[in-house]
Amino acid sequence: MPETPSPHTPTPASYRSTARTVPTRARERASYDHESVHGILDETYICHLGFVRDGAPVVLPTLFARVGERLYVHGSTGSRPLRMASTPEPAHRGGTDAGSGPDSGDPGLAVCLTVTHVDGLVLARSAFHHSINYRSVVVHGIARQVTDPDERRAALDAIVDHVVPGRSEDSRRANDRELAATAVLSLDLDEVSAKVRTGGPDDEPEDASLPYWTGVVPVTRGYGTPLPADDLDPSVTLPGYLSTL
Amino acid sequence: MPETPSPHTPTPASYRSTARTVPTRARERASYDHESVHGILDETYICHLGFVRDGAPVVLPTLFARVGERLYVHGSTGSRPLRMASTPEPAHRGGTDAGSGPDSGDPGLAVCLTVTHVDGLVLARSAFHHSINYRSVVVHGIARQVTDPDERRAALDAIVDHVVPGRSEDSRRANDRELAATAVLSLDLDEVSAKVRTGGPDDEPEDASLPYWTGVVPVTRGYGTPLPADDLDPSVTLPGYLSTL
Repeated sequence: MPETPSPHTPTPASYRSTARTVPTRARERASYDHESVHGILDETYICHLGFVRDGAPVVLPTLFARVGERLYVHGSTGSRPLRMASTPEPAHRGGTDAGSGPDSGDPGLAVCLTVTHVDGLVLARSAFHHSINYRSVVVHGIARQVTDPDERRAALDAIVDHVVPGRSEDSRRANDRELAATAVLSLDLDEVSAKVRTGGPDDEPEDASLPYWTGVVPVTRGYGTPLPADDLDPSVTLPGYLSTL
Repeated sequence: MPETPSPHTPTPASYRSTARTVPTRARERASYDHESVHGILDETYICHLGFVRDGAPVVLPTLFARVGERLYVHGSTGSRPLRMASTPEPAHRGGTDAGSGPDSGDPGLAVCLTVTHVDGLVLARSAFHHSINYRSVVVHGIARQVTDPDERRAALDAIVDHVVPGRSEDSRRANDRELAATAVLSLDLDEVSAKVRTGGPDDEPEDASLPYWTGVVPVTRGYGTPLPADDLDPSVTLPGYLSTL
């Protein structure tokens, strides 16, 4: 008999799966639940943002942050993707969402935002079964310029705090001139998938006796000792949010 | 008087700069010399590969390796970008190189391959001047299926050895069935740029006396203790190339 979820165990919220979020291979590694996706997104601050320029792909690393079901990236108002997002050129849209956005005055920019963590090197006995343990999230959608001043400020704070939690309150906020020079794009989490590989090597049974070392080499990330700027006033001590980073 | 390079200090080889490899901002961070580009590419094994599908961008993490002036990526023959690279659909080409490739029988796939290292978090006194110390390489071009058996084998060895130097010789090489299931794409280093930020924060002079900690938090990467597979024969010891990884 199928289990009926009790009121105390809510069904986890999930993103819809679409033709472009269902992988062509290793489908068992894909997941669509909010918790998995949020967890992977929140663990780092660098994404790779793809867009189409003159018909060709462009992929650039950039900072991002998540606020609820929306991602934000920022940059100079002069930077390429941020200019393109406010240019009414339908060729930039692409994808299945073209023409269906809620803000018909803002053409937006079709983007793919990808976040990847590498957790381990998987060494099988056969070269073919070598792999990587990883967690990635791929977000497809239309990025739009954020024009609301409050949302812009909140997004910029979120980006600073995504890199160093607590930092936005312990620095000088952007002034009007700086805000005017900064463009913010939003991208809703809607067409999203996570893909995860964990565990050990998956060798062919007939290779079990081959004399090669096999297992997983964990990949680690961390932070070194913070290096104060040359002109830091010696009376300013290291803030707590840096010693616990 | 301009310096004349002596015969003993050869001018470093450089990639051509094009409209899409000259950044719209922070141009002083860009470089085009082979040494800088190779150094950044060789220090990691994960790239983010962008391509265009149905007019929209797709960005996927994948392993890669460099052999001379050529990059290789691989995957299942069933995977999306690898199938697309051998589909004669001109819409996938894009970019300035469309139609000019040496192999007119192979349409190829317009790609952007990006590699990024994050080296430090740059905490300025002002939120606006927060930054990241990073080194990235962006490669634009047409990826082509590698069909020559020797080049395919060499490329697959290079990918394994790019992750763990020395590993390809200490594992079972791919057999014919495995080779048939693996597609290899090549991408020549031609339209390529590196972008690097180093150093400390760059605050406004009028912010110098603000009471916020400022400096750089180094970002570190490393490896944990290798975890042998459950079924590893205890007589197989840890290979030297793993203890020096």
